[in-house]
Amino acid sequence: MHTALTIDDVRLTPVLIADPPLLNTQGVHQPYTPRLIVEVVTHGGVTGVGETYGDAKYLELAHPLAEALPGRSITDVNGLFGLAEQVCGDSRAAEDSVDAGGLRGVQTADKLRLSVVSGFEVACLDALGKTLGLPVHALLGGKVRDAVDYSAYLFYRWAEHPAGGEKDDWGAALDPAGIVAQARRLADAYGFGSFKLKGGVLEPDREIAAIRALADAFPGRPLRLDPNGAWSVETSLYVAGQLGGVLEYLEDPAGGTDRMAEVSAGTDVPLATNMCVTTFAEIAEAFARDAVQVVLCDHHYWGGLHRTRELAAVCRAFGVGLSMHSNTHLGISLAAMTHVAATVPNLDYACDSHYPWQTEDVITRRHEFRDGRLAVSDAPGLGVELDHGRLAALHRRWLDDDGSMRERDDAAAMRRSDPGWTTPATPRW
Amino acid sequence: MHTALTIDDVRLTPVLIADPPLLNTQGVHQPYTPRLIVEVVTHGGVTGVGETYGDAKYLELAHPLAEALPGRSITDVNGLFGLAEQVCGDSRAAEDSVDAGGLRGVQTADKLRLSVVSGFEVACLDALGKTLGLPVHALLGGKVRDAVDYSAYLFYRWAEHPAGGEKDDWGAALDPAGIVAQARRLADAYGFGSFKLKGGVLEPDREIAAIRALADAFPGRPLRLDPNGAWSVETSLYVAGQLGGVLEYLEDPAGGTDRMAEVSAGTDVPLATNMCVTTFAEIAEAFARDAVQVVLCDHHYWGGLHRTRELAAVCRAFGVGLSMHSNTHLGISLAAMTHVAATVPNLDYACDSHYPWQTEDVITRRHEFRDGRLAVSDAPGLGVELDHGRLAALHRRWLDDDGSMRERDDAAAMRRSDPGWTTPATPRW
Repeated sequence: MHTALTIDDVRLTPVLIADPPLLNTQGVHQPYTPRLIVEVVTHGGVTGVGETYGDAKYLELAHPLAEALPGRSITDVNGLFGLAEQVCGDSRAAEDSVDAGGLRGVQTADKLRLSVVSGFEVACLDALGKTLGLPVHALLGGKVRDAVDYSAYLFYRWAEHPAGGEKDDWGAALDPAGIVAQARRLADAYGFGSFKLKGGVLEPDREIAAIRALADAFPGRPLRLDPNGAWSVETSLYVAGQLGGVLEYLEDPAGGTDRMAEVSAGTDVPLATNMCVTTFAEIAEAFARDAVQVVLCDHHYWGGLHRTRELAAVCRAFGVGLSMHSNTHLGISLAAMTHVAATVPNLDYACDSHYPWQTEDVITRRHEFRDGRLAVSDAPGLGVELDHGRLAALHRRWLDDDGSMRERDDAAAMRRSDPGWTTPATPRW
Repeated sequence: MHTALTIDDVRLTPVLIADPPLLNTQGVHQPYTPRLIVEVVTHGGVTGVGETYGDAKYLELAHPLAEALPGRSITDVNGLFGLAEQVCGDSRAAEDSVDAGGLRGVQTADKLRLSVVSGFEVACLDALGKTLGLPVHALLGGKVRDAVDYSAYLFYRWAEHPAGGEKDDWGAALDPAGIVAQARRLADAYGFGSFKLKGGVLEPDREIAAIRALADAFPGRPLRLDPNGAWSVETSLYVAGQLGGVLEYLEDPAGGTDRMAEVSAGTDVPLATNMCVTTFAEIAEAFARDAVQVVLCDHHYWGGLHRTRELAAVCRAFGVGLSMHSNTHLGISLAAMTHVAATVPNLDYACDSHYPWQTEDVITRRHEFRDGRLAVSDAPGLGVELDHGRLAALHRRWLDDDGSMRERDDAAAMRRSDPGWTTPATPRW
């Protein structure tokens, strides 16, 4: 058994995947977004797959980690963290060079490294499950539910990208009627019972109007609004006051623990975050100051499925709610999200899902939401199979790219239609 | 594979195991202590073993859980908690009837149930590991160290039990010289490099003298003192003042979060606990008030190996130290402790080990400490095998007992030599 579990080879395949022109406070999604597909091949001939961010800064960390893995066991996922620290360079030096902000909170070298590790951890768990004939959830102690609830992810959007890219038939959504129509189509197609609107795009009063229109169209359904920290404390409290009793939670209205704590002190609307608390190091202060009432886990930047379960345990111990974040990703990550979500007793809210916006995938059979839920797979591993033809085609797109799409940069994408656009200073409103 | 993992049968075997006349603040260890051995037998013909407390209140919960398990999968350890809640009776009703205190902190119905679940969880993991050919640590994500450090556990003790029981050649230890001699023998035999003295037995000044004698005899070695909450805040601060710079940590000097927080505020000596923080529900307040700087995990009452890893994650996130508790237990639990300890990155201190005091066991080959450490087994499962002859003999002792030993009661044991003894009120000093 032990020899069969030894890693023989690791393949890294960056791809570019189509992404619709979805708007957020920093700009607009590019026509294509980079992702990295990780394949871990065992001596027993089994291949496990994982997926993570694909920008250059992630690839730079992924390559030395991939080279260090052969000879190790796929069971040794706890050891990936120490190994990554060892082979991926001095994080202290790297920390000086990373971004100070973004849609996923402060980007530290540690967080970049954890995001890379997560792709490898998932690939190892997939390979282990396939080898043993066990689903990934069983490798995490077993599922406590047979299906996982997901929420519809609503975006202000354009009908098409200004500079090419794939087309779709969703049309533009730039006002309450457009958002309601989008919500209805998502609900009809997939059965979603709750809705999240990506905000921070229009003036707050216009987004308030959109949420009110959703509340009218879907009475009693849980609604969320996420402006990605675009608002001042004052604006956040104004919106919370306008939407009290309507919102299930308000996500990252203002940036940073200080502002979130101020907002929290002034409203009864629960505050959720995937920006203020995105690492274990950020938890203690945020919880002590009651800055957030709901943490959105994300196995990518929390460092994998085991770490996600640990985050859930921390939230449980402190009476803080747990939800799940999602951004542009493929079906490999959605499978991983579903497995880990199935094992966590305190999954208090439906998980976010960006997946309906991703029409391209690298797996042979796409996930299908029914009644807003995904059934938890009991097939070995993640329960997905790589479509090598699709993978090759999306990798070809990456190879052929002139470099403009290989880094996700929503502000740069916005500049194609608005040459004067820069990432807005926060608070924007 | 799935059918092979189905539980066909669960065997519960209560045993009485010899325990020397070790003193603590509540009394003295009985000549024999009850433990419960759990065997989970799979459809594939594999048997996994676990161990937990064996008093009647645990057996009462273990029986319905054992009856509910056949037909379930040994992979489904996360589901044990919900199952136990379901079949083990209404915890709210039970909470009214449980003890208000003890050497392991407040005993709630939840904690009793978790202690029972832990024995079943370990048995399931052992069976799963044996079936898959994987060590238990690999089922927890893999070891991050090849050996686990343990600490010598020193006790004030009598030479023999006043009313029979097994004899040993350790003799009495009731003064500093006796404690130093005991420490030297444990260090020589097993290589322990750190020492913990169970205190709360003699007047504080006499225990201070014992710690000073240890510091003289073993310069630079980490020393711990644990009076099980026997002291007032004033006494705790007095002892901390006397032993500042000598103690690695002071364990549960005073009882309860209020007193521990007061002591903590008045000393730089780190405070450890296995009484003040023994459940996830107790963490938030204790951490917020900085009442403890080190938590002693114990997979029995924290609810198993997965939960122990979650506790470790909570401690890591909050910068609180992690050590491990041990009381009278057999080699099955020591194996489980070693496996989980091997997987936890932030095992900041050598684990406690009561094991050298247990001369009887139910496994075929006892664990051997070398240089104060146990090597982490890479054999399938826990890496121990049940000795069915020894198990039957120790069960026979339980069957033949007149009932006086089936409940661990250190005060009752003390009354055999001191008929007027009652559990001392706290603070005792």
